[in-house]
Amino acid sequence: MTIEAKISAFDIEMMQRCLHLARQASGKTSPNPLVGSVIVKNGEIIGSGFHPEVGQPHAEVFALQEAGKQAKDSTVYVNLEPCSHYGRTPPCAEALIKAQVAKVITGMVDPDPRVAGTGIKKLRDAGIEVIVGVEEAACRQLNEAFVHRVLHKQPFGILKYAMTLDGKIAATTGHSAWVTGKAARHLVHQLRSTCDAIIIGGNTVRKDNPNLTTHGVTAHNPLRVVMSRSLDLPIDCNLWNTKIAPTIVFTEADSSTAQYQKLIGKEINIISVTALTPNIVMDHLYQQGISKVLWECGGTLGAKAIADGTIQKVMAFIAPKIIGGTAAPSPVGDLGLTMMTNALSLKEVKTQMIDSDILIEGYLN
Amino acid sequence: MTIEAKISAFDIEMMQRCLHLARQASGKTSPNPLVGSVIVKNGEIIGSGFHPEVGQPHAEVFALQEAGKQAKDSTVYVNLEPCSHYGRTPPCAEALIKAQVAKVITGMVDPDPRVAGTGIKKLRDAGIEVIVGVEEAACRQLNEAFVHRVLHKQPFGILKYAMTLDGKIAATTGHSAWVTGKAARHLVHQLRSTCDAIIIGGNTVRKDNPNLTTHGVTAHNPLRVVMSRSLDLPIDCNLWNTKIAPTIVFTEADSSTAQYQKLIGKEINIISVTALTPNIVMDHLYQQGISKVLWECGGTLGAKAIADGTIQKVMAFIAPKIIGGTAAPSPVGDLGLTMMTNALSLKEVKTQMIDSDILIEGYLN
Repeated sequence: MTIEAKISAFDIEMMQRCLHLARQASGKTSPNPLVGSVIVKNGEIIGSGFHPEVGQPHAEVFALQEAGKQAKDSTVYVNLEPCSHYGRTPPCAEALIKAQVAKVITGMVDPDPRVAGTGIKKLRDAGIEVIVGVEEAACRQLNEAFVHRVLHKQPFGILKYAMTLDGKIAATTGHSAWVTGKAARHLVHQLRSTCDAIIIGGNTVRKDNPNLTTHGVTAHNPLRVVMSRSLDLPIDCNLWNTKIAPTIVFTEADSSTAQYQKLIGKEINIISVTALTPNIVMDHLYQQGISKVLWECGGTLGAKAIADGTIQKVMAFIAPKIIGGTAAPSPVGDLGLTMMTNALSLKEVKTQMIDSDILIEGYLN
Repeated sequence: MTIEAKISAFDIEMMQRCLHLARQASGKTSPNPLVGSVIVKNGEIIGSGFHPEVGQPHAEVFALQEAGKQAKDSTVYVNLEPCSHYGRTPPCAEALIKAQVAKVITGMVDPDPRVAGTGIKKLRDAGIEVIVGVEEAACRQLNEAFVHRVLHKQPFGILKYAMTLDGKIAATTGHSAWVTGKAARHLVHQLRSTCDAIIIGGNTVRKDNPNLTTHGVTAHNPLRVVMSRSLDLPIDCNLWNTKIAPTIVFTEADSSTAQYQKLIGKEINIISVTALTPNIVMDHLYQQGISKVLWECGGTLGAKAIADGTIQKVMAFIAPKIIGGTAAPSPVGDLGLTMMTNALSLKEVKTQMIDSDILIEGYLN
């Protein structure tokens, strides 16, 4: 029997409810996934919950707590396979068995090699019916950063830029405020709130002096990361104000240089590396438990990030306006591609109007 | 009583039928408009027609011919106000009066100052009920080039380009075949078939050696226009093959130059002007009765065409791929705009997927 034959519209609705719950913790759970859970008995929700942040209990635990003794013979919905290993918390599969639930409906198998189907097996071995794959595409998308992290041992990278309809991110003078309208900029603030870190280059710090915050969209602000080979950065800039969010600067300069000394005393973390590349920075961020990284850099660093394989998704905001300028900067610098036939194709392309701007997004292969 | 209160779903359907008929002559009627007409009696179509090309009868005449004596007491639908003046053909308003029709439903007033409401007045004076404005937006769009020509004494200009998602029309090497996929290119062939002329610069001739034809989409191929100040053009190229479509070259070079002499004997028309600007070329094309011009040029000429006010509409085909390249050409060259706030905004922006590519189109103010 196919999965389609076994699932109902109610099952889909409950899984969407799990995804909605899971999203409440957007940006706060890394390196853990976003997980929501709903427990249903006789067609009514008797418990629900989501994983709020790393170190806190998993979604199923909150849902089971709320359901209490009623959990016996119930159906549990959860967007990701229940865990089977002892991590920071005891395995959820065991908690579900102990609660004597009748059925578990899950969106996808956990790609984490410590789980990878063992949670499902444990449940089935205990006589619990398990259905896998309800709203699987939506479940995979919600945790695309987590899945990439687990499979590739690096954070998931999104290159985001805003350009005019003639492909410029600024005028010939470098003036760029603003390319897109308020609604698109608000969407970027929301996007930031789902990310663990934002990376820019030294040039963007010097030119735009950005805050890189969520501007109050949620309480969560991602880590701000600057890549600056020479550390030729201003003494005062918004990113050195770390009351709102922490800032790390990656550099090749060592602490004896004047540029480095100038920044000592700022409440920022300076990390010197031998060769400053997007890959090295992403490796560092991976070690810090980061899953989802937004690249809001200019074309030069953006091209390096693509060439290094650190970009999985591109989000291009296009403003329906023409600025012109042969020398005006465009969103992606040199990739060394000489033939149009060698251009990097995006897949799963989606487009939508954001007020008067257009968002085109897709995945690099 | 508002127009909404007076018109029915049937009226709208009949007007859409007029527009469908009118489109049969796309690209062939300039300097005349695209017009279709349907005559209805007792809920049935008793006659229909469209204006096929300049010098041929108007749409209403064909429709009246088909309806014959039945036209008495009928309702006539026509997307543009019936003409009232003696041009190449006798006035349609008089023919409708003579046929004793009861009612005329039209999409819009004719902006041609020789008509401009006098056709409607003539009908009303003869006791015929006239309703104006059914499907007006669609009627105006179909004849946007004609309306622009009549009001501004210049052809309507469309700037069309294909670029990657990072804003490049070619790789750093100039290689550009192809940016977009087959479906988008087919749509461009269809677009060409609705135009009277296509303009490119000498650089595009040298680099791409294009045909600029409709590739068999329809029998109509627009006039091909090259702007080349120096006439530094190849002796052999596809545009000198005028069996498919005629070619005009505008230049500043005079006939004594070696470049000019080299092209003598080709079946092309060479026009020397004192100062070669988009405006001068559009004025020449206007004098030739041309309404709708497609600019398929590179960024340098495209910027000059915008700066000269000869572009009314922009159609940007965006391929979801990244080619990169700081020096890779972008679709619009220097406009002298130094602040993003001074960018030229498009209005009435529409976006659609064309297979895997995205078309964004809108109007310059």
